[in-house]
Amino acid sequence: MNNDNSVLKKILTLRDNQWMEIEDPVVMEAPVTLILNGKELVTLLCTPEKIDRLALGFLRSEGFINTIDDLSMIRVKEDGLVDLELKSDSEAIEKLYGKRTITSGCGKGTVFFNVLDSLQSSPLEGKLQVEAAAITRLSKELQSHSELFKRTGGVHSAALADQNEIIFFFEDIGRHNAVDKLVGECLLGRVTMEDKFFILSGRITSEILLKAARLKTELIVSRAAPTALSIELAEKMNITLVGFARGQRMNIYTHQWRVLKEHS
Amino acid sequence: MNNDNSVLKKILTLRDNQWMEIEDPVVMEAPVTLILNGKELVTLLCTPEKIDRLALGFLRSEGFINTIDDLSMIRVKEDGLVDLELKSDSEAIEKLYGKRTITSGCGKGTVFFNVLDSLQSSPLEGKLQVEAAAITRLSKELQSHSELFKRTGGVHSAALADQNEIIFFFEDIGRHNAVDKLVGECLLGRVTMEDKFFILSGRITSEILLKAARLKTELIVSRAAPTALSIELAEKMNITLVGFARGQRMNIYTHQWRVLKEHS
Repeated sequence: MNNDNSVLKKILTLRDNQWMEIEDPVVMEAPVTLILNGKELVTLLCTPEKIDRLALGFLRSEGFINTIDDLSMIRVKEDGLVDLELKSDSEAIEKLYGKRTITSGCGKGTVFFNVLDSLQSSPLEGKLQVEAAAITRLSKELQSHSELFKRTGGVHSAALADQNEIIFFFEDIGRHNAVDKLVGECLLGRVTMEDKFFILSGRITSEILLKAARLKTELIVSRAAPTALSIELAEKMNITLVGFARGQRMNIYTHQWRVLKEHS
Repeated sequence: MNNDNSVLKKILTLRDNQWMEIEDPVVMEAPVTLILNGKELVTLLCTPEKIDRLALGFLRSEGFINTIDDLSMIRVKEDGLVDLELKSDSEAIEKLYGKRTITSGCGKGTVFFNVLDSLQSSPLEGKLQVEAAAITRLSKELQSHSELFKRTGGVHSAALADQNEIIFFFEDIGRHNAVDKLVGECLLGRVTMEDKFFILSGRITSEILLKAARLKTELIVSRAAPTALSIELAEKMNITLVGFARGQRMNIYTHQWRVLKEHS
């Protein structure tokens, strides 16, 4: 393993009608299992870097914790396990069971719709505005940051930015993991997220939208496509969605007032 | 909604330094909740097409059923719920709880490693061989099939092929869903999968590998990158992994004897 999250593999490659044996860099992937209050919560398949951020971000994105102070312990072990202890476990455990147990699935009572309903009932109220030129510039920067992608073609990247610069940047084989690592970094450093925005390489699906809504992130910029459902959720939750932010182009799908249009 | 799984959305787009309001096609996404024997199993976020195939394929890929005969009922309802009844539920329910419950996470006892161990203990034994020229040709065909991707940029595609042709083809916002729809189609039509192979647009992660191992699919071709873990699992499980199959190129990562090299 290189210390850059890639590993060289001997492969057979076909180029210009010729078969060659070469060594090619491949992105690392490893299972990381979160143990919450002594019980197995989930196994995430991820790029094995900044595991503590991933664990913290996952707990925050999924609603188990709000700040790092909600935890009494986090310990990353060598075998891919992360031990996490909540200070007060009753509420979190309840949420845990609310999410993980097999509920009766009658009518609109599914877990997904419960989550959806609760988030839709309180749209974001922030007034963040960002210049279109900044979105264009920072989206290009995201791409140039992405060394691991250039080497391996196998990862997504996610950044937290403000109007001026990219503040944190992570890469991971999973779109969600990259965002969760950002979130974990913010928790650790007690950095506020409400006044900043996401720039993502991957597609925007409803799950990313729900994550952003929980984190009160008002603006999501992606170099890729959104889904129709993510647009509908963004509309309802007062989140601005920008897609296909590539080169000098971008599409604004919702709440376009957050993007200042004086673009040069 | 168009009947092609895309929907037109009014957006503001920046092109050539000009802001324009246009209508742009966006891929559909919808939650589909599987109810197994009256209990909520999982909510999948997917392209809402061929839901019955998705449900069947998910149950097969996750090890709940082996053939369609293991089910006594499948009913897709209008509200995104799919009711499924197993003929004999004891074994399946046990598996369900084995997967979903919160087990104690000591040492190597995590659910992920249990799954891994059981699959690694019986590597595939098939002798499928495919010409490199066929891989090149069919991989190009996958791309040309993908109308929804061309329109929306928001989906992955997956095909089941033999040496001669693409047999089934699906697109979905989720890499896994596209494969599960293939699997469901095979179950419904009682089509054997062991003598065929996957061609995928998306990256190959360990979860795709585990799916293929369960289905006894010996060859996976992707237009994108594999991870190091998926290569290691393919090596152990005797699965041939081909990545970056684009144009006249391809990389063979494991068990290259299944690819016949007389490439013109």
